Amino acid sequence: MLIVKKFGGTSVANKERIFNVANRCIEEYKKGNDVVVVLSAMGKYTDELITMAKDINEKPPKREMDMLFTIGEQMSVALMAMAMNKLGVPAVSLNAFQVAMHTTSAYGNARLKRIDTERIRRELESKKIVIVTGFQGINKFDDYTTLGRGGSDTTAVALAAALHADACEIYTDVDGVYTADPRKVPTARKLKEITYDEMLDLATLGAGVLHNRSVEMAKKYGVPLVVRSSLNNEEGTVVKEDVQVERMLISGVAVDKDADRIAVIGLKDEPGIAFKVFDTLAKKNINVDVILQSIGRDGTKDISFTVNDNDLDDAVAALEANKARLTFQKIEANKEVAKLSIVGAGMMSNPGVAAKMFETLYNENVNINMISTSEIRVTVLINEKDAERAMNAVHEAFGLSD
Amino acid sequence: MLIVKKFGGTSVANKERIFNVANRCIEEYKKGNDVVVVLSAMGKYTDELITMAKDINEKPPKREMDMLFTIGEQMSVALMAMAMNKLGVPAVSLNAFQVAMHTTSAYGNARLKRIDTERIRRELESKKIVIVTGFQGINKFDDYTTLGRGGSDTTAVALAAALHADACEIYTDVDGVYTADPRKVPTARKLKEITYDEMLDLATLGAGVLHNRSVEMAKKYGVPLVVRSSLNNEEGTVVKEDVQVERMLISGVAVDKDADRIAVIGLKDEPGIAFKVFDTLAKKNINVDVILQSIGRDGTKDISFTVNDNDLDDAVAALEANKARLTFQKIEANKEVAKLSIVGAGMMSNPGVAAKMFETLYNENVNINMISTSEIRVTVLINEKDAERAMNAVHEAFGLSD
Repeated sequence: MLIVKKFGGTSVANKERIFNVANRCIEEYKKGNDVVVVLSAMGKYTDELITMAKDINEKPPKREMDMLFTIGEQMSVALMAMAMNKLGVPAVSLNAFQVAMHTTSAYGNARLKRIDTERIRRELESKKIVIVTGFQGINKFDDYTTLGRGGSDTTAVALAAALHADACEIYTDVDGVYTADPRKVPTARKLKEITYDEMLDLATLGAGVLHNRSVEMAKKYGVPLVVRSSLNNEEGTVVKEDVQVERMLISGVAVDKDADRIAVIGLKDEPGIAFKVFDTLAKKNINVDVILQSIGRDGTKDISFTVNDNDLDDAVAALEANKARLTFQKIEANKEVAKLSIVGAGMMSNPGVAAKMFETLYNENVNINMISTSEIRVTVLINEKDAERAMNAVHEAFGLSD
Repeated sequence: MLIVKKFGGTSVANKERIFNVANRCIEEYKKGNDVVVVLSAMGKYTDELITMAKDINEKPPKREMDMLFTIGEQMSVALMAMAMNKLGVPAVSLNAFQVAMHTTSAYGNARLKRIDTERIRRELESKKIVIVTGFQGINKFDDYTTLGRGGSDTTAVALAAALHADACEIYTDVDGVYTADPRKVPTARKLKEITYDEMLDLATLGAGVLHNRSVEMAKKYGVPLVVRSSLNNEEGTVVKEDVQVERMLISGVAVDKDADRIAVIGLKDEPGIAFKVFDTLAKKNINVDVILQSIGRDGTKDISFTVNDNDLDDAVAALEANKARLTFQKIEANKEVAKLSIVGAGMMSNPGVAAKMFETLYNENVNINMISTSEIRVTVLINEKDAERAMNAVHEAFGLSD
């Protein structure tokens, strides 16, 4: 078997943890498996590098920022190879140049295009554990790039796909995917299995276990993922195309408090206005989520939508700068909102799911501001102060508690 | 003009110094010159990396050690590019992979074989300052190597040679090459010029301004070197093939206190014994310097030689392990010795130089243990306690004081 194992920054934050990871990988190796390990930078090292850079230049060029970032994973992989060597097992560390991890050109947010597997295969054939830097790649200019937030998950999945690995295990500080965040919902249960699509919606909606780009890639190439803890030996959650066990109606409940609502009020009720609003935001690279457009009245209409907290100021500024062209009267921004979502492949064949969610929230006296649905997801925008109470009530109502 | 400038770790140890270096390079750039900058790791960062590695594995594999070391220079060059960008000048940082800095295979002590200049030339053509990692290279396996102590000097000289640079400036914390160590000899004078050969002997003999491998390379390719301070604008010392000014008899006096003496006593007086002794040491990679062999008497003879302080224990152990085969009676080791050398191309045509040195030491009541000479150098082994007094006396006797 060929197994790709990915460990995040907290799993390699100090000497003791490095040896813990080394031992887990060696255990797998001694069963006769080929082991490829993907590592992030140690602990908060990436943050330290940001601080170092900003002290020199508040707006460092992105190309140079990536040049600086990539030393973090190189440190992790070199030290890990030393730890395995200390434990008597041959290991070799490889960075993005050595693997040849080709990405698109965009510094700070590149996408993997192609991974050469020749070097890795050669090292595996000579019976070494291969330790690869996560998060980083090289572009067509022979420059370092990084893959953006959670990029090491993507590296691991892409390597598993390129190497046709038998398993791709993502080790984190939680021991699997839960029906809801266990810190917020005490009765949350760990899922044995979940589909790529469900995981994708949960990842996008703030469950935060896996980077969504890595799930997209796993789905595209059919890479079987396992999410498990680096701190214990629990079985974790399997993410795959189709779940065999008898299905729950929904698989999980997620809350995203980083959503803010913007209302654009008093737009002229004429064709193309909505397009102009969203085009203005798209040009600034601002992602817009749940959208609600009021019915026109007295020749005007309102458009509301949510954006991520980080983008709020830029979004408002971009709209205000085009006030005349966009024909609106005023903008209202509200940061005290949260997105509450339920996700489940089971709801495709069961039209009563959304109604049941709304009823539960009504009984809890939680006001719904906006609604958005997909085939396997229902999302509502509610007041942030209601978020945890609503989450627990919905979790209970759908029988997710054990 | 194309100018290569090399700055050591102390010159980039903190934010203030990074900007100081950035400003000096920009000054050159604004005169219309092409500027290539070679940097070492910041301050004591390489030592920190060693500590980190040894905490994991007392004997880390050299290949992984080089993988870890190379992040030091990558940090320096990325931060320097950010500083120059902050000052409004376009700059780009390049590591050993990006330049394609080919070396021999030996991890920890590789030699440069070939440098691709295409990327650097392209960046210079687009009017950027190019900042290159010193000390590191890549070998035929596509692995990082490092060039050993003082390797960044060698990187700078090799780049200057490959790019046919008009000048190669080595910035250090002293402002040039002196007739003797100014901390020990208050009357020492800075030299305006010195030949490669003289510099080579001074570098080897513990003057410590330039790495000897870098001087060898400068001589081989005729790269004009300048040694100057990163902290002031003094002119520094030019190192070149032939010095035009009227020559002093000697150029400098150097002391090396790291030398230890080993005496192998009571060897059988038969052919091949000396070979066996030095072959035993050569096999352990121990460099032997000044050698003295006694005349045979009563069928035995003694051999004395000096080794570097770091190698003393290994040398004694290697000899003791072969005591029977080497036929000696005992070994005496003495750490309280120092090598005192005078260097000067002028002594080639002047046979009285050695005698004058011996006379000076005799007058100072300094005992000479061993003597070694080359065409442009006289070295004597003396007691360490006499070293500074002897150095000052010789410096004075040859009229080097100003």
